[in-house]
Amino acid sequence: MSVAAQQPPQDAAVLELLHRYRFERPVHVTRPTMPSREDYQRSLARLWETGWLTNDGEFHQELGAGLARYLGVEHVSLCCNGTVALLIALHAFRITSGEVITTPFTFPATIHALYWNRIRPVFCDIDEKTFNLDPQRIEALIGPDTRAILPVHVFGHPCDVEAIQAIADKHGLHVIYDAAHAMGVRYGDASVLEHGDCSILSFHATKLFSTIEGGAIVSRSEVQRKRIDYLKNFGIEDEETVIGPGINGKMNEFQAAFGLLQLEMIEQEITRRRRLTEIYREGLRAVPGLRIQEDMPGVRHNYAYFPVLVDPERYGRSRDELHALLRQFNVHSRKYFHPLCSHYPFYSALPSAGRENLPVAERVAERVLCLPLYGTLGEDAVEGICAILAGLRSKPGEARA
Amino acid sequence: MSVAAQQPPQDAAVLELLHRYRFERPVHVTRPTMPSREDYQRSLARLWETGWLTNDGEFHQELGAGLARYLGVEHVSLCCNGTVALLIALHAFRITSGEVITTPFTFPATIHALYWNRIRPVFCDIDEKTFNLDPQRIEALIGPDTRAILPVHVFGHPCDVEAIQAIADKHGLHVIYDAAHAMGVRYGDASVLEHGDCSILSFHATKLFSTIEGGAIVSRSEVQRKRIDYLKNFGIEDEETVIGPGINGKMNEFQAAFGLLQLEMIEQEITRRRRLTEIYREGLRAVPGLRIQEDMPGVRHNYAYFPVLVDPERYGRSRDELHALLRQFNVHSRKYFHPLCSHYPFYSALPSAGRENLPVAERVAERVLCLPLYGTLGEDAVEGICAILAGLRSKPGEARA
Repeated sequence: MSVAAQQPPQDAAVLELLHRYRFERPVHVTRPTMPSREDYQRSLARLWETGWLTNDGEFHQELGAGLARYLGVEHVSLCCNGTVALLIALHAFRITSGEVITTPFTFPATIHALYWNRIRPVFCDIDEKTFNLDPQRIEALIGPDTRAILPVHVFGHPCDVEAIQAIADKHGLHVIYDAAHAMGVRYGDASVLEHGDCSILSFHATKLFSTIEGGAIVSRSEVQRKRIDYLKNFGIEDEETVIGPGINGKMNEFQAAFGLLQLEMIEQEITRRRRLTEIYREGLRAVPGLRIQEDMPGVRHNYAYFPVLVDPERYGRSRDELHALLRQFNVHSRKYFHPLCSHYPFYSALPSAGRENLPVAERVAERVLCLPLYGTLGEDAVEGICAILAGLRSKPGEARA
Repeated sequence: MSVAAQQPPQDAAVLELLHRYRFERPVHVTRPTMPSREDYQRSLARLWETGWLTNDGEFHQELGAGLARYLGVEHVSLCCNGTVALLIALHAFRITSGEVITTPFTFPATIHALYWNRIRPVFCDIDEKTFNLDPQRIEALIGPDTRAILPVHVFGHPCDVEAIQAIADKHGLHVIYDAAHAMGVRYGDASVLEHGDCSILSFHATKLFSTIEGGAIVSRSEVQRKRIDYLKNFGIEDEETVIGPGINGKMNEFQAAFGLLQLEMIEQEITRRRRLTEIYREGLRAVPGLRIQEDMPGVRHNYAYFPVLVDPERYGRSRDELHALLRQFNVHSRKYFHPLCSHYPFYSALPSAGRENLPVAERVAERVLCLPLYGTLGEDAVEGICAILAGLRSKPGEARA
């Protein structure tokens, strides 16, 4: 970050905007959705009665069943967090060596889960519009050691699941989806989680749907679900039988009880975020140099994030400059995902990590900024942020697109 | 288990005992220690105010500091569970290949954590009295691929830490202690956790001290603690810097708040269990064929478990038969640890897993039975269990030892 970006010039236009639009209290980029405390205390009372605090308790069972119903899927395995879910999912299919083709435009957990399973990530470039793996670039990366493809439904926008499956089928590869962002997303008539060999969800506190920490694996058959369920509980079949080398990936009852109450709120939360997203879109669509994502045909979105791409030429400011300026307005935005995973020191030496191989991902990571979005955010706050973003454009003389 | 063990003969003596001592309601082998629900609700109120549910929140910080104070150690890293703590600890020292010498007499997590780090376990026999690794048997198992020793303080009884350290020093090996049972145990003037390169604690609901699920790594220097702390949080240093391939091993605020209240109760819990242990010892010391563990000199025990060894010759019944009979009395005991980890199908083919190499462990696993023990268990219940165990001995004619 340049010095200029850290301390942006206080020109008259910015001062005028600050005067009009600066928020008195910080607007965070996200806030956890909280169920009613009274409801949660009622759930706890049950735990104090039974003393059953973890290990497939009644809230765990109810949440597993409730999620399956809500998502319209059959096989759900709850986990302590999304990263451990991904570790277990890879292990379930014995993807524990060789190479896996994946995206550099993701949270570090995606790539680290490969590392912990002794898999070398092979970075593949992404699509300019969806920010997801570009299927056209996958096949050239397949080699003798390739075991699987690990795509991410970035910001909940579905990957090109048909094209990816066709490649996987042609080459005999597994497909494990990192669907950490894709809770509740539907594609056509079905959950987007019903693609590939399995899908991983994250229920971290900052997610649309949360179990404080948490995650799940949505698998495609009873056989798979059973294998996953024993892998997450030490491989224990019964008191005297351990059938495989499992770890501890269990979700506890305090998490599951929290999730059950969240499940009652999720549709309201999505509706609320959709409304805020519409306001953002209306307010920003016409600002030259800011690119927003629109709904995709045939997709039921979850509106988990609101990313914009900042074109420094047309907007007149870089993403970093805008990020720093927004702070002055008490608006917290997030460079999500920046830097690319291919830039981390211990992956950057991989042949596939070279900047020249990932031009789209490099450009998106330099330009992306996620704006505040959560159910309890006010509509006026979103309107204010739009006004700030429109006002901060530093080429006011140029005609608007 | 034989049919006879499943349906023990209802001889007159047993019927008479059942008539006198059968418990109306099940006596579980353990029950979680619960803090006051009102106190926990007060902690939750704070979380509902701040919305800070995980990621090094204030309860997390308080519990880390509180545990360090209570244990008299400097460096504590909290984790989502003890198994993930062990995975991370091994990774922290780059013990991620080759062989590690360990005990077969442990919970599966100990060995599975090696497997997930691609380490081959080398099983070493145990000491007849402490059930811990027999230091005399370790050296013969060291070879060119040996990386570390992973001893377990079984039932909270300290290993022979000096002898183990001397061997490790001589051969340049790491020592990672599985101290899942050893919360609060002191050896000489210090915590038993201050031995080896680091120690792992488990705070699972069934443990003496619990954070619902949970665990911790006690390390020996600030440098180690920092490495562990980034490994448990995706290797994230700050918003834009990822310095290493970490996973998600975070303890959340709901767990930490629970743990803080438990910390206020732990001394009372240990005192209570010590009293119950004394009653067990008084009641069983003179029963021929039952062997109990006594306090070790210089050790401050935590009384986490009460194991007995059943000698089938002298007691007149096998451990399995006794376990099944106790069920008829509504007493739940546990064959802990049985079977040995070296018997699990995916480890049993290892050269070190042969029964002939592990005679003591084999014998202990065939004979051990953990009796009910938890703070809220009544003294009269323990006296009743002692009477049942004395009465069930089926060689009543023989002189008592």
